[in-house]
Amino acid sequence: MASVKVFGSPTSSEVARVLACLFEKDVEFQLIRVDTYKGQKRLPEYLKLQPQGQALTFEDGKMTLVDSREICRHITEKYVDQGNKDLLGTGTLERASIEQWLQTEARSFDPPSSALVFHLAFAPLMGLEQDQEVIEQSRRKLNKVLDIYEKRLQETKFLAGDRFTLADLSHLPNTQRLVSHNGCRQLITSRKKVSKWWEEISSRPSWRRVVEMQQEPTPVI
Amino acid sequence: MASVKVFGSPTSSEVARVLACLFEKDVEFQLIRVDTYKGQKRLPEYLKLQPQGQALTFEDGKMTLVDSREICRHITEKYVDQGNKDLLGTGTLERASIEQWLQTEARSFDPPSSALVFHLAFAPLMGLEQDQEVIEQSRRKLNKVLDIYEKRLQETKFLAGDRFTLADLSHLPNTQRLVSHNGCRQLITSRKKVSKWWEEISSRPSWRRVVEMQQEPTPVI
Repeated sequence: MASVKVFGSPTSSEVARVLACLFEKDVEFQLIRVDTYKGQKRLPEYLKLQPQGQALTFEDGKMTLVDSREICRHITEKYVDQGNKDLLGTGTLERASIEQWLQTEARSFDPPSSALVFHLAFAPLMGLEQDQEVIEQSRRKLNKVLDIYEKRLQETKFLAGDRFTLADLSHLPNTQRLVSHNGCRQLITSRKKVSKWWEEISSRPSWRRVVEMQQEPTPVI
Repeated sequence: MASVKVFGSPTSSEVARVLACLFEKDVEFQLIRVDTYKGQKRLPEYLKLQPQGQALTFEDGKMTLVDSREICRHITEKYVDQGNKDLLGTGTLERASIEQWLQTEARSFDPPSSALVFHLAFAPLMGLEQDQEVIEQSRRKLNKVLDIYEKRLQETKFLAGDRFTLADLSHLPNTQRLVSHNGCRQLITSRKKVSKWWEEISSRPSWRRVVEMQQEPTPVI
């Protein structure tokens, strides 16, 4: 029986990040999904009350974690000898670079991309007003951070060097959301190197598998 | 938060029976599915170890049940005032007739149809030898019981009378399996009244919804 358990839906970007990492590391795990139905209608994700108040809970034996990047670090450290062995780099310097980009993703890329996608794609579905100020502010912030990425990717193939690592993996869920929306796609496609990097990292079998899981047809809501 | 929880996969006939009943009764519930992944591969249902040794567990508040027909009785009795109010009939006589056909389904229809489908469809997938004796014996038993159904359905539109009840609902999962397999379909389609009854009960929105959930694409195994 798998000792690793993931509670959550693959459509959550936090869960998707962890799934991509588990697939890269070839770790056996159980995915536990909770769907709420009201009559024949499945309630959309955003109306669900999460039992633990979290979109993601991760268990490995007796350890419980809820932060997706912390979970990815745990997986790559604990399952060091299996699957993709490059995710955390091989030396102290490379590891430091990976950590730096992981933090850039968490602090500077994730917040504006989440906010942008929320206001452009989810707010209308939820009957909320789109906050134009947040949209413009997020777009400005993303343009700024992606300019830095573009420059970096002129020097190295991936963010932390010449290999795909956790630094790149961590960007998969939100970049996927950006390129999936007409109103944000250009943020990625207008940048030559960022665009090429996205093509490279998004075509990995691990991520294609996650997208496949996300796209399982949603029952009529 | 829904107090009703169903643990299991819609592809299990036990779970499917309960889902059809919940949909008919318009009951809000949570469906909790556990999938085991080994690397990018999802393990097929039959290789999974069920945590409780059961394909189905049902909770309603503090009550826990595991037998699908008992669960259906509980749902129709507890949620008497909502959804389809005819499932358990309206008088003592009708209820007695429903119980009789529920028991016929559990004792005489379910065992041979499950055995037949197992040996024809699942055994080859699991690398097990098909037991020809079981196949022939199950077919004989089913022919016998379906002859009784054919006769009954010449008198009444549904098994327990002129309305769709739990007696009919309980037959949905295994009849669906029979008609889905080339080697068994004729058991249903060769009988005029049984065939008409099947068309009628399988086209109910509740059951079509369950089939839709069962047919969500299975990730590559």
